[in-house]
Amino acid sequence: MNKGDHTRQVILDEAARIASQVGLGGLTIGTLAARTQLSKSGLFAHFRSKESLQEQVLAYTTSRFIDLVVRPALQAPRGEPRVRELFERWLAWCRDDLPGGCLFFQAAMELDDQPGPARDRLVHDQRDWLDTIARVFRTGIDEGAFRPDADPAQFAQDLDGVLLAYTLTSRLLRDAVAEDRARRAFGALLVAARQPTLVTP
Amino acid sequence: MNKGDHTRQVILDEAARIASQVGLGGLTIGTLAARTQLSKSGLFAHFRSKESLQEQVLAYTTSRFIDLVVRPALQAPRGEPRVRELFERWLAWCRDDLPGGCLFFQAAMELDDQPGPARDRLVHDQRDWLDTIARVFRTGIDEGAFRPDADPAQFAQDLDGVLLAYTLTSRLLRDAVAEDRARRAFGALLVAARQPTLVTP
Repeated sequence: MNKGDHTRQVILDEAARIASQVGLGGLTIGTLAARTQLSKSGLFAHFRSKESLQEQVLAYTTSRFIDLVVRPALQAPRGEPRVRELFERWLAWCRDDLPGGCLFFQAAMELDDQPGPARDRLVHDQRDWLDTIARVFRTGIDEGAFRPDADPAQFAQDLDGVLLAYTLTSRLLRDAVAEDRARRAFGALLVAARQPTLVTP
Repeated sequence: MNKGDHTRQVILDEAARIASQVGLGGLTIGTLAARTQLSKSGLFAHFRSKESLQEQVLAYTTSRFIDLVVRPALQAPRGEPRVRELFERWLAWCRDDLPGGCLFFQAAMELDDQPGPARDRLVHDQRDWLDTIARVFRTGIDEGAFRPDADPAQFAQDLDGVLLAYTLTSRLLRDAVAEDRARRAFGALLVAARQPTLVTP
């Protein structure tokens, strides 16, 4: 990594920390300059605009998410062990990675009504992530661990909900039992996936 | 309702619409003045500060949520019918009520790291709401419809997750199947609540 790449990474790291706490809308070149002790003009040279900064922070965070969550989870054995590894790493990401919690969830609520390159980037990466969950779940069907008629896209949306509710309960309500409940909810999704017949209500 | 109350309601209505789209942080007295065609000084007289405006928008939206979701759901027969009514009304709220989706979910992600009266108000109301879900669920245990060892607080967090994932999938990803999946997830929670024995994974 050359010096320019290293500087860029340090800046984006700090930008992601700020955005996780105050939102992408609260991330200004001024705040970022103060926190990194770099000049505003230097940051403008790097990022050109606030919109471009937002998009680059999201892209950078996605690449970190892939390194810390996706790639290692895909090393686990196919089927349920891989689904479990994905869940554990995702939970650890939401809990520990950034001081303000998961940047993607924060950005999802913030950008849903704000068209532009940052929203487009987030949508692209969230679709990829839900596809990854579904694909990992499907290895459990292929291995015979999950019901053949289980719906991988349904599982992906359901698991997204487990992590979203964990985030709200732990970060907004500061409820220490949030993590146990997230594990129980995940366990119940696995039980339902394993059952040979599920009675429709 | 006197004229002052009516004016205040019109303003808070518009403020909630704005905040649902751009967040509470993006809701300024200036924007609100432009949208309501009232003077900034008049609005300052009503709300004193941005923080106070945020808190009052949340309190106003909670009182509308109680009128549109909580109170009518509590009219349904105890047990599963009441749980279903609560879910349907909540889903309709998230889908239709405000142009930017559920203000509470937006505010939850936005305010979790921002101490102050708006956050305090949101925490208070979210706790009340999760308690209401748990209490309604408990009527299903009392009526014998749900397992006696089912955990109402777990159900409340799980159902919160279903609506959060619905919001992300429908509003950010514009995925038309989000609502069907939310209904299926809700159905699966009911199935799990009904089962006499649930195998722990």
